[in-house]
Amino acid sequence: MKQENLQVANVMSEMCPSRALLNHVTSRWGVLVLLALQSETLRFSELRQRIGGVSERMLSKTLKTLEQDGFVRRRSFNVVPPHVEYSLTEHGKGVAVHVKALAAWLENTLPELPIAGSLGADTARE
Amino acid sequence: MKQENLQVANVMSEMCPSRALLNHVTSRWGVLVLLALQSETLRFSELRQRIGGVSERMLSKTLKTLEQDGFVRRRSFNVVPPHVEYSLTEHGKGVAVHVKALAAWLENTLPELPIAGSLGADTARE
Repeated sequence: MKQENLQVANVMSEMCPSRALLNHVTSRWGVLVLLALQSETLRFSELRQRIGGVSERMLSKTLKTLEQDGFVRRRSFNVVPPHVEYSLTEHGKGVAVHVKALAAWLENTLPELPIAGSLGADTARE
Repeated sequence: MKQENLQVANVMSEMCPSRALLNHVTSRWGVLVLLALQSETLRFSELRQRIGGVSERMLSKTLKTLEQDGFVRRRSFNVVPPHVEYSLTEHGKGVAVHVKALAAWLENTLPELPIAGSLGADTARE
């Protein structure tokens, strides 16, 4: 990607900024944050509850990255005790639509795939 | 996920096999393998050329995982020198449609996102 927007973005190219965005959006926890926030605004602790297996540290890191990318909005209310909410921006909603479609396809197609035969053995450790 | 397919798959649950599939399909190189094979059958060396930055080891590992998941088909021809081709299965094509839509959205929306302002500085190292 050059300064002029004439050049076309290409995720196959390591140097294209779209590759970095793709990595953020499809990161292990990035995907699930987008899914969780797709339908509602949530606090940090609520997000952690929704996303099975995520650590505080990784959730915090993922939220920060997606906020910098312009996908997540963080709103901090100046109250005691502190109250912080996370939601998707318009761009976040745009990308989440596709992440949701992908996840839904996998959930729906699961019974037809080889992994269904092994019934989740070992999958938690992958 | 229990044996009966009555229970609904849910990627938010750490134990659901759909979570493992989501991780494979959205892995750093998994995404790009699906994109590269979406429109054509390719040999290993051709795949490596298409996917900027992938190592031999990671490409091999990624292909094996996606093959086990039922998304990639590996065809080995018994000739000298050896000839091995990779393509998508019907399920692979199904999931690749959504990965493609996600990648295309990012490529098209890139100019509107904050990262476009910084013009790819540091993105190659993320």
